[in-house]
Amino acid sequence: MQKPLTLGIAGLGTVGAGLLELLHTHKARVAERAGRPVEIVGISARSKGKDRGVDTSGIKWFDDPVALAKDASIDAFVELIGGSDGVAKAAVEAALNAGKHVVTANKALVAKHGVKLAKLAEEKGVALNFEAAVAGGIPVIKTLRESLAANEVTRVYGILNGTCNYILSTMTDQHRSFADALREAQDLGYAEADPTYDIGGFDTAHKLAILTSLAFGTELGFDQVDVEGIQSISEVDIEAAQDMGFAIKLLGVATRTEGGIEARVHPAMVPEESAISEVWGATNAVAIDADFCASLLLVGPGAGGRATASAVASDVLDIARGAVMPPLVTPTRGLKPYTKSRLGRHQGAYYVRLSVYDRPGAMAAIAKRMGDREVSIESIVQRRPRSALPGMVARQKPGSPAMVIMITHETTEEAIRSAVDAIEQDGKVSERPQVIRIEKLESA
Amino acid sequence: MQKPLTLGIAGLGTVGAGLLELLHTHKARVAERAGRPVEIVGISARSKGKDRGVDTSGIKWFDDPVALAKDASIDAFVELIGGSDGVAKAAVEAALNAGKHVVTANKALVAKHGVKLAKLAEEKGVALNFEAAVAGGIPVIKTLRESLAANEVTRVYGILNGTCNYILSTMTDQHRSFADALREAQDLGYAEADPTYDIGGFDTAHKLAILTSLAFGTELGFDQVDVEGIQSISEVDIEAAQDMGFAIKLLGVATRTEGGIEARVHPAMVPEESAISEVWGATNAVAIDADFCASLLLVGPGAGGRATASAVASDVLDIARGAVMPPLVTPTRGLKPYTKSRLGRHQGAYYVRLSVYDRPGAMAAIAKRMGDREVSIESIVQRRPRSALPGMVARQKPGSPAMVIMITHETTEEAIRSAVDAIEQDGKVSERPQVIRIEKLESA
Repeated sequence: MQKPLTLGIAGLGTVGAGLLELLHTHKARVAERAGRPVEIVGISARSKGKDRGVDTSGIKWFDDPVALAKDASIDAFVELIGGSDGVAKAAVEAALNAGKHVVTANKALVAKHGVKLAKLAEEKGVALNFEAAVAGGIPVIKTLRESLAANEVTRVYGILNGTCNYILSTMTDQHRSFADALREAQDLGYAEADPTYDIGGFDTAHKLAILTSLAFGTELGFDQVDVEGIQSISEVDIEAAQDMGFAIKLLGVATRTEGGIEARVHPAMVPEESAISEVWGATNAVAIDADFCASLLLVGPGAGGRATASAVASDVLDIARGAVMPPLVTPTRGLKPYTKSRLGRHQGAYYVRLSVYDRPGAMAAIAKRMGDREVSIESIVQRRPRSALPGMVARQKPGSPAMVIMITHETTEEAIRSAVDAIEQDGKVSERPQVIRIEKLESA
Repeated sequence: MQKPLTLGIAGLGTVGAGLLELLHTHKARVAERAGRPVEIVGISARSKGKDRGVDTSGIKWFDDPVALAKDASIDAFVELIGGSDGVAKAAVEAALNAGKHVVTANKALVAKHGVKLAKLAEEKGVALNFEAAVAGGIPVIKTLRESLAANEVTRVYGILNGTCNYILSTMTDQHRSFADALREAQDLGYAEADPTYDIGGFDTAHKLAILTSLAFGTELGFDQVDVEGIQSISEVDIEAAQDMGFAIKLLGVATRTEGGIEARVHPAMVPEESAISEVWGATNAVAIDADFCASLLLVGPGAGGRATASAVASDVLDIARGAVMPPLVTPTRGLKPYTKSRLGRHQGAYYVRLSVYDRPGAMAAIAKRMGDREVSIESIVQRRPRSALPGMVARQKPGSPAMVIMITHETTEEAIRSAVDAIEQDGKVSERPQVIRIEKLESA
């Protein structure tokens, strides 16, 4: 048996506590499979006295995570503090500069400073592993970095935020409003008191930025991601989607186009016969299209202390087994610059929901605005919400707005936005039209 | 740039040709990401002159794969010959004995001789990688060997044979018979002229045996797998399953129970709201339940030259990058013996289809046989095939058999088989009852 791999762990929240539990529970298993014991020799967290369910009395305490990061006793530093800057960044840099391997679950840090940190890791010949930074227990970093490294990836997309997926699932299953579903998610601890980071799509954008770099071998472009959240999704959109054979998911999608990288986060419709449409609740999913491997879909727990700790442990195990991979798939000197494709150039089909004043010529005017921009319509239905069944409520009064839903054939973002703006300016609709992109999936 | 990794490739069928194409297309990408060029220096196949779509004129030809395997010019040997014994085994052993890394796509070889070969690789300090041996392009070997190595796996299961899944998909989508769907699969090249290996479940059993060892850290137990094929599945079973909210898939399932390992291959019902139920056509899927990571599902191409070549290439890339992992997750000295749990001890719910003579007391006698063995019934329906709509055919004649379908609550294999045997012996049914296991999935 070789000498132990010694760890310093900074940050003992749910993931840190999960990691302590895992390394305690599976001590013998890890030692056997790594070919050497893995020992925690130093820890650091905000409050020293807190009970974390695992005996840490034999482990040296550090008030300062930076001091732990460069302590002579550790081989590898595990950063579970969080935040793109501040002490997390200082500690990771200190560890790398001291020639320590680094494992981090910090998506914001990697999305913002990943290239610089990867370069430093390469110079020092140490690992910088971050499986837990994206999609919790799903091994998507390893899949892109290793399994698909000899492929050209053309698209990566997925359900990357469990809070949003939980809310959309609740709205779909229980026919509840967004506000109501959000409140339940908050009560259950799935959503924060200030839910903006999750429901606004920013968490997904951080994760997508990391996946994009790994997929296409480019520098990181977090500030280049177009982001929309799920706040605008209503029960009627979800009902209409179901009736037409779609589910609505918050997707992060990055596609390599001739004009550059199109990276976007937004609610999207996916066909109900697809496997990804059956990913419900707090579960995450990541799909990858590549030239030789065709399409992969990975589904699993996107968060939670134990599942995320499992991802951290796999990173630690790789280090213990002696594997050091280029952090961003391609050595940083070979990373291509990030070139953004304008969202206006996006091509796809669209769902458009209009609240149309029931006046003579209204539909003709709408059809003309679409036709002028060569947007052709695949289907059009006038419908009422499922809750308003005939006989249960008064029939629609003449002159009041009617709900009209269109599915377009493939068109461009520019064309559909311009058509919808013109329809709104014509005064034919009573509220701002709802526009949802339909994501094209490969037939399996 | 370091010195090249030199490869010898034996076997140039569809996977071998795919690998030549991949290494040609992505030569620069592979070199950059591996940190060194990957060069094919020797090849061997049955017919030397055949056009494989890639120029092989600069590569040394070997008539004898064993000579190639131990040739001084190669660092790693890629075995794509196939077959559990014979020249494939001889060549792999020769390569390992000569201290060469080995990559193989040969499921039969690994299922039968994996422990012996892994031991040899460990002694020589070289890699034995076989990502392509199970589920084509899906990175399931890496997921078990690396991503979940610090977990205790409790179950691994999946759709591991594209031919069977294609046939079941065709039967489901197009309401066609098994014989008809098989013929189409043969016409399209998805099924062999002698389809026994695929439709009888033996291909799935080979793959499951490998997954089982990796999942539970045991020796290989290919001959311990209980195997049933899909030949007995009829259109009425598929229709009845659909009506009750299930899809029928050929699953390979390995579960760790208190009595040992339960490894079985058989047609199974899975709920339509599960992601795995939406895996159609020739696509494969593998699901893994583990203590810290909960549940993962991986979906992708289970066969095909290009996707399988992608898996082989990832194995090669790992070697070029210097990663050498224990072939069977746990070093062979730590492998546990394979202890089989009897299938009779299997616990689960069952679908039972009976063709019952419409005579007084028949149902009472059937119910008694079930009740005597404490098999309780969740639902029972008498139904006619969908094709026999009322008014289109004569109504059932008094005394002729009626189709009765039951779903049981959780019971044991022993109880249900005993009940069904007794019902048959009672002479209450006109043909052998159909029994299909319902696989319990975690709610996502």
